[in-house]
Amino acid sequence: MMIMEEGIKKRILSVKDTVKIKVRVDDTDLMSVVHFKNYLSFFDMGFVEFMSAIENPVESAVQSGIVFPVKKLEITYEESAKFGDHIIVETKIKEIGEKSMTFLHKILRDSDNALLADVECVRLVMELKSKKLLNVAKFLTKYV
Amino acid sequence: MMIMEEGIKKRILSVKDTVKIKVRVDDTDLMSVVHFKNYLSFFDMGFVEFMSAIENPVESAVQSGIVFPVKKLEITYEESAKFGDHIIVETKIKEIGEKSMTFLHKILRDSDNALLADVECVRLVMELKSKKLLNVAKFLTKYV
Amino acid sequence: MMIMEEGIKKRILSVKDTVKIKVRVDDTDLMSVVHFKNYLSFFDMGFVEFMSAIENPVESAVQSGIVFPVKKLEITYEESAKFGDHIIVETKIKEIGEKSMTFLHKILRDSDNALLADVECVRLVMELKSKKLLNVAKFLTKYV
Amino acid sequence: MMIMEEGIKKRILSVKDTVKIKVRVDDTDLMSVVHFKNYLSFFDMGFVEFMSAIENPVESAVQSGIVFPVKKLEITYEESAKFGDHIIVETKIKEIGEKSMTFLHKILRDSDNALLADVECVRLVMELKSKKLLNVAKFLTKYV
Repeated sequence: MMIMEEGIKKRILSVKDTVKIKVRVDDTDLMSVVHFKNYLSFFDMGFVEFMSAIENPVESAVQSGIVFPVKKLEITYEESAKFGDHIIVETKIKEIGEKSMTFLHKILRDSDNALLADVECVRLVMELKSKKLLNVAKFLTKYV
Repeated sequence: MMIMEEGIKKRILSVKDTVKIKVRVDDTDLMSVVHFKNYLSFFDMGFVEFMSAIENPVESAVQSGIVFPVKKLEITYEESAKFGDHIIVETKIKEIGEKSMTFLHKILRDSDNALLADVECVRLVMELKSKKLLNVAKFLTKYV
Repeated sequence: MMIMEEGIKKRILSVKDTVKIKVRVDDTDLMSVVHFKNYLSFFDMGFVEFMSAIENPVESAVQSGIVFPVKKLEITYEESAKFGDHIIVETKIKEIGEKSMTFLHKILRDSDNALLADVECVRLVMELKSKKLLNVAKFLTKYV
Repeated sequence: MMIMEEGIKKRILSVKDTVKIKVRVDDTDLMSVVHFKNYLSFFDMGFVEFMSAIENPVESAVQSGIVFPVKKLEITYEESAKFGDHIIVETKIKEIGEKSMTFLHKILRDSDNALLADVECVRLVMELKSKKLLNVAKFLTKYV
């Protein structure tokens, strides 16, 4: 069994990354607020920036054929964002397992810091070509 | 307290609606399968068809200013859909509360009936203009 | 120079395909009608169905590594579609060149046959892996 | 007939606004590059930033019930953007008419300044509630 080096694990678990996104017209729907599916774009960007903040741009991983499919997702919607709002996505890792990693995202409105949505998202690490799942701890050790 | 008429409740809880959707190119991403956010479009359509199957097209409700914001969402992804696949969304109601209704959606691949995603989705009933939440049981009694 | 067999060309130019699409909530934006970018999804589906109507499902081409990037696009918007509307996309080919093919799409509202948008769209045929453009006439001759 | 004050017109026609956008995973499709419809999101943001650069945030106009529907759109695609790329949208006005205004957008890749897409886009000014089109010159004079 792969044991992740404690120092690395601790470091990754302590990272808290923040990204700012401006709501586009096409993020909204006929309710005049962001459609509920588009919050997934927001924290997907949060994930991307988090991974880049650990060490490498996640784009490099993707270009080298490693992807991060979502396995499970829980989201609670508290308030709505509207066109022109600035959104803050705060991202941290809750858990690093062998087969998955669990992210926590808070989606906030920048102007008043109101919580818009709370997300827990489990991701895998997969080699795109072979569809083989990788050991997450191993991947992260090499990644950072 | 509003008690929903038992006959109506029973009838709504027994409805199981099914809708078929063809995966578009722009539903996919660089992993060559449907991006995880687009499954939300799929079961959103399942919701729309379910509401219409109960009695009235949900579009009429929307046109008369009633909308159904998502409060909470849990989704587990099992397998992927790709461009050209036909997707089946099976929808039923799990629970009708005063303040919310909980939907269960199964997203299946049509060709082999494989489960792609399992969804539990809590929705509210809201008057769009006033942002006032409506009593769900009351709304449904009037709706059917 | 590749000369396309006249019979095949004539046949392809005479095909007129029609596909029906139901407008989703997330196709709309804060104007309560379909966002202008989503008409591109509609005629992209028209293209897919057209190619399948000629002979083979376009999905087979895509799976075998052939894709159809858009080179140029002109669209004129006449009227709007709203949530729940059924949209008809009529597709035919205007021109088959060596390096491109030009499609005409009419996007209509099903209920009253109103023209929503008029599209002229130039597409290439490309081998995805090598990014090499293929001779279109040659490709179509083999394709049908 | 409304004549736009020459000084104002000159000023607006001389504005050139630039906005930077990072490509998201869900902007891409199975070709591993940005789907052709998503370039419309990019220059839609360019439009929003341009209008804000003239004077007022376009969001204020939208909140006060003024919207800017697209009437006509021409786009030529030159090169592709991929996940993680930074995109630059350069926007200026080509023409201000009574009934419409014509925008030019250049969509560039930030890293090498390569032209990805060239856009000409005609927009109207509309009062959302009444669907009444406004005189563009008049609107802009008041707007700046």
